[in-house]
Amino acid sequence: MSFSVTILGSNSALPTSERYPTAQMLNVSERFFLIDCGEGTQMQLRKYKVKFSRINHIFISHLHGDHIFGLMGLISTLGLLGRKNDLHIFAHPDLEKLLQPQIDYYCADLPYKVVFKPIDPRHQQVIFEDDKVTVETIPLKHRIPACGYLFRQKPAPLKVRKACIDQFELSIAEIVKIKNGCDLRLEDGTIIPNCELTEPSIPGYSYAFCSDTRYFEKLSTMVKDVDLLYHESTFTNADEQLARKTTHSTAEQAALTAKNANAKQLIIGHFSARHRDLSPYLEEAKNVFPNTQLALEGITFDVTKTQTK
Amino acid sequence: MSFSVTILGSNSALPTSERYPTAQMLNVSERFFLIDCGEGTQMQLRKYKVKFSRINHIFISHLHGDHIFGLMGLISTLGLLGRKNDLHIFAHPDLEKLLQPQIDYYCADLPYKVVFKPIDPRHQQVIFEDDKVTVETIPLKHRIPACGYLFRQKPAPLKVRKACIDQFELSIAEIVKIKNGCDLRLEDGTIIPNCELTEPSIPGYSYAFCSDTRYFEKLSTMVKDVDLLYHESTFTNADEQLARKTTHSTAEQAALTAKNANAKQLIIGHFSARHRDLSPYLEEAKNVFPNTQLALEGITFDVTKTQTK
Repeated sequence: MSFSVTILGSNSALPTSERYPTAQMLNVSERFFLIDCGEGTQMQLRKYKVKFSRINHIFISHLHGDHIFGLMGLISTLGLLGRKNDLHIFAHPDLEKLLQPQIDYYCADLPYKVVFKPIDPRHQQVIFEDDKVTVETIPLKHRIPACGYLFRQKPAPLKVRKACIDQFELSIAEIVKIKNGCDLRLEDGTIIPNCELTEPSIPGYSYAFCSDTRYFEKLSTMVKDVDLLYHESTFTNADEQLARKTTHSTAEQAALTAKNANAKQLIIGHFSARHRDLSPYLEEAKNVFPNTQLALEGITFDVTKTQTK
Repeated sequence: MSFSVTILGSNSALPTSERYPTAQMLNVSERFFLIDCGEGTQMQLRKYKVKFSRINHIFISHLHGDHIFGLMGLISTLGLLGRKNDLHIFAHPDLEKLLQPQIDYYCADLPYKVVFKPIDPRHQQVIFEDDKVTVETIPLKHRIPACGYLFRQKPAPLKVRKACIDQFELSIAEIVKIKNGCDLRLEDGTIIPNCELTEPSIPGYSYAFCSDTRYFEKLSTMVKDVDLLYHESTFTNADEQLARKTTHSTAEQAALTAKNANAKQLIIGHFSARHRDLSPYLEEAKNVFPNTQLALEGITFDVTKTQTK
């Protein structure tokens, strides 16, 4: 089962010539999700050869420009490419009020529908679920209402061992029951437990996206035991006062959340434009949580291969 | 006197990973103008090391997304950079209705004022003038109201020859008069003509930006004798039907306008994303108007050095 995160942009409010504002592309069991959509996201999608048409759901963390100014361009381009499927955008209710007049004006003949899915970023709740994945909000603490998103991949369906099908001459009805977790009762009354009839199950993995937020202890409990945690680290400790003032986090605080959450791996991003060299971020975080990497543009993280270091 | 055009984006509606949508930066006698502002313009300004703060006037050709989706990002970034000066945006009146609600929401604490300057793209008229330059609209023929812009640099003020100042012991009042074009009358009644008292005058140059438009004959008369002409060429003759349908021009039509206008030099842009190789555009245009170049991103054209080939 695939589960990967591709970083399209990792800078904070001011983009630089090398780093774009926030956007990430997720593939969870072949469901394709875009998280945030800073200016230039559509160029980054092209640059990293991500197929636009695969995106059916967009999750917006909050309504600051560096997380949404790429939306209109992307919506327009999807129309020019002849998209037909609905596009679902999960975001604070204000987004619809701001975006719909633009869609009406610039994309009057849009060949598909933009469906706004208003969310309440103050509450932790499941906002999307299908047979492969659930997505829940993670309330964050920022200057304006903001939330992260926790993507939980569902475990792969149980697979009945070929040898057992032959040995017990299983009917279709029996196979379906075993796939659903039932044991097998033989005619002589013997019970064959489900675990002997099926392949070892593949667990579902999880990814939490947390941007933008100041540090607060409770966040680690909301992302407890997550496999991969993305946490903003706009600043380093040298700018801790500035982080506090702007309700952002330092690399150390991101690492502390990862540590307290017992995350397997941490990636940090949303870097301040004032830092060209990102190694101080990485060093600071690694001091607290060694299994940290920078969320650099173009890198794809495989969530199924995260390992505790 | 400086007069240059830097290409920031030259693609049509669909950006590619290598070519951004339309935006150009002008320096006319140290007046800095931005023409159009497609998505990613602020990244391109950084990439080509153009100082944001120098831009005081933006001229928008028409309200299609590929010419304006970078405006909100640029406006927001200028605020974050602490801009104080008013920013003047010349555009169709609808832009204010679309942009102001976004500015109010995303940039509530903007430290400078965005001044909308509504223009009527249907009429050819001077919309800006100062001591260095005039800017006039060029009505174009597109699916929606659209205009180009003609930038006319004013000639440099006359400079009185140092030798004459010494020879005739000129007073300040006399120097001012000569600078204004007057001849000098000596005490014995002799008239020294102005041309003998002043350095050879430096003429003002001109640049016309024409995007987006279908071909129409009258355009060449509106940009008659321009030094440098930018003309869209979304397609080549192979897609002439498509050009007609979408009210765009082919490279040959752009060249024909340049030829009929007696322009010194032509640059073509607004290329369709379907063409990776741009040489067919250039060849087609050069067959009609040899002094043609591609408006490639990052290239700066010196308008004072345009020469008829």
